[in-house]
Amino acid sequence: MGKGLLFVVSGPSGAGKGTICKSLLDEIDIDLSVSMTTRNPRPGEIEGVNYYFVSQKEFDNIKKEDGLLEYAYVYGNYYGTPKKMVMDKLEQGRDVILEIDIQGALKIRDTYPKGIFVFILPPSMKELRKRITGRGSETEASINMRLGEALKEVSYIDKYDYCVINNEVAEAVERVACIMKAEHSRVSQDIYQIIERYKEEI
Amino acid sequence: MGKGLLFVVSGPSGAGKGTICKSLLDEIDIDLSVSMTTRNPRPGEIEGVNYYFVSQKEFDNIKKEDGLLEYAYVYGNYYGTPKKMVMDKLEQGRDVILEIDIQGALKIRDTYPKGIFVFILPPSMKELRKRITGRGSETEASINMRLGEALKEVSYIDKYDYCVINNEVAEAVERVACIMKAEHSRVSQDIYQIIERYKEEI
Repeated sequence: MGKGLLFVVSGPSGAGKGTICKSLLDEIDIDLSVSMTTRNPRPGEIEGVNYYFVSQKEFDNIKKEDGLLEYAYVYGNYYGTPKKMVMDKLEQGRDVILEIDIQGALKIRDTYPKGIFVFILPPSMKELRKRITGRGSETEASINMRLGEALKEVSYIDKYDYCVINNEVAEAVERVACIMKAEHSRVSQDIYQIIERYKEEI
Repeated sequence: MGKGLLFVVSGPSGAGKGTICKSLLDEIDIDLSVSMTTRNPRPGEIEGVNYYFVSQKEFDNIKKEDGLLEYAYVYGNYYGTPKKMVMDKLEQGRDVILEIDIQGALKIRDTYPKGIFVFILPPSMKELRKRITGRGSETEASINMRLGEALKEVSYIDKYDYCVINNEVAEAVERVACIMKAEHSRVSQDIYQIIERYKEEI
């Protein structure tokens, strides 16, 4: 059996990548890559489900041992993608889904170029504004800043393999699921095993 | 709207590409590329559905005007894929499916490299033998020759983008349909139109 595939699902904040990934995990036989962080768990967060919660020292050690596919420092805390967990699953032939922001995805593109990179787009900037506003508690200025940020991020789309417009969640989920299925039908090294088997059969 | 995509569905005789294409045409909004031939229509064959039946002179003229994506001479007759019909449909944003043998597909790879090339594989050589035998009226020697031919053809699989094992027709059809959907989500030039629209909206 061929090795598993790593699907990196990314996009601007508010595009809906989280919702899409949650649905995919419900519908498809795929594993989620869980991030590691030095920040404290929030109420309700579960170790190994939301994050692996580690000390600064543990994080530094893993980082030093080249044990992260990517990492970032955000608001006083470190976040990273543990390499071993992902690689073990891929080796076992399991597909892995990794939900991450654009900066993180671009780093993973360098460390694991064999990944399949999917960019989730909002249907329009108007709709993105509505979604960000809907979350409440943000000022007009901060919303505008985030929209500007989203626009900047969208320009990295040429580093991705696929883009899916999240107009309607179910439709977008089905599309990403199709991409996953199609990628398993790509002509790759595995096919030569099948051809060898044919030769033996004839 | 982006232009349509050309899906070239190919594979050894007996792998089931014809059955798969027929199902796809029933299930999906896609057009079929109809070949041109100098041979006479057989009873029941309809002009423009099974083939475009043309005279040798007509065929030669179209060939001379570079009007064919590929052509071949088989058992005293010419067969070819008219370029204009395919290109017009793609230009109109319609997807086109083209069912063809491996030699033809390889020629189209040269004349239209933007096509998406799907190789249909039989589940095994044993099964392929059964399918060819099932058609009746072939001698053991001719069956063996065709299996040898199929094995030779399979070695061209690395010129293709995707391969689908036709174990169960419905499954294979769904897989090809997924490939078509996924290919429409590829990051391509079209995406920059969307980004321009975003910029105007902000």
